[in-house]
Amino acid sequence: MHAEPPRLSALIQALCRLPGIGKKSAQRISYHLLQRDRDGARSLAAGLTEAMDNIGSCQRCRNFSETPICDLCLSDKRDSSLLCIVESPVDVFAMEEAGYKGKYFVLMGHLSPLDGIGPQELGLDKLAAYLAGSSGAEAGGEVREVILATNSTMEGEATAHFINGIVQRHDIRVTRIAHGVPLGGELEYIDSNTLSHALAGRREISE
Amino acid sequence: MHAEPPRLSALIQALCRLPGIGKKSAQRISYHLLQRDRDGARSLAAGLTEAMDNIGSCQRCRNFSETPICDLCLSDKRDSSLLCIVESPVDVFAMEEAGYKGKYFVLMGHLSPLDGIGPQELGLDKLAAYLAGSSGAEAGGEVREVILATNSTMEGEATAHFINGIVQRHDIRVTRIAHGVPLGGELEYIDSNTLSHALAGRREISE
Repeated sequence: MHAEPPRLSALIQALCRLPGIGKKSAQRISYHLLQRDRDGARSLAAGLTEAMDNIGSCQRCRNFSETPICDLCLSDKRDSSLLCIVESPVDVFAMEEAGYKGKYFVLMGHLSPLDGIGPQELGLDKLAAYLAGSSGAEAGGEVREVILATNSTMEGEATAHFINGIVQRHDIRVTRIAHGVPLGGELEYIDSNTLSHALAGRREISE
Repeated sequence: MHAEPPRLSALIQALCRLPGIGKKSAQRISYHLLQRDRDGARSLAAGLTEAMDNIGSCQRCRNFSETPICDLCLSDKRDSSLLCIVESPVDVFAMEEAGYKGKYFVLMGHLSPLDGIGPQELGLDKLAAYLAGSSGAEAGGEVREVILATNSTMEGEATAHFINGIVQRHDIRVTRIAHGVPLGGELEYIDSNTLSHALAGRREISE
């Protein structure tokens, strides 16, 4: 059989580790880079190293940050009476797109005892400290509403439920984002669980 | 709007340059690497650099190689009376899968005058030298059949036609891989050009 240069095979294998990239795409990408975009490959290598070496977690909200406290936490243009709890940094991105203007707390996962992910791994002690306003600096204390925006999966729901228990100890309002029919969704194609949620969460129409 | 850490944005942009990777996948990959596979990211960065710095072209067949002459060209287990001409290294891979056992010449592209790709860029002078057996070392000379396996596109056909002209100057047989109905293909779904090729290339069934 054909002997690929060993470093080419190594590159293909490294690319295969990326989510959503199979053997075929990895091959295509490698050949493309070698044939047409060696500069791109080098800048990607530099970008990867730079990012891995310099991006850590914000000490307050646990989101990705290059500084000890992230820009979002430091910003005084955000409503610090609102704290939105999400599972991962991508969700922060999604919430921003949706126009949310408060602060965040990023769990970096969800409760999953079988995988050894408990309250400690999700930084829930940090969250408690945040809410108590004792997490150092000018954080917390002022939080008046916690919005649970974990995913609508079994694990996400369990996590939301668990966090609810923590927040209830403080004098803070807790809300969960609404579940229902997505905009543009047709009833015919919505699963029955979602529909029953949408039904239970129906609201008065005010003129 | 949300301020991503600048190095994260830079990484996402570098990933977007890869073929088949859009903004969304790039984001997903970056977050995945940061959150769960920093080692993978570092080994990918190393792999990229290693590959770009060490993989060049074989001086004889122009395929990717870490050595001046590639393993395939040096191998004495390959039939050196057969020379298969392909457009790119991926095609070498495909031919190997198909069980081809001869030697190769890789054009690294196809004739495309509008993009400034002429005979020179495809190394056709090298090919002529190869065929004349004068490309140094123990190459060529012994080639008795050139198989044109460029793609079955307009550019591929034009390239094949052009190379045919070069090979004809030597006393060497030139063949083109067959075009026709792919195995498992149903006539109903085959385009008419392919079908007319298949018809024109029909062969006697010998018992």
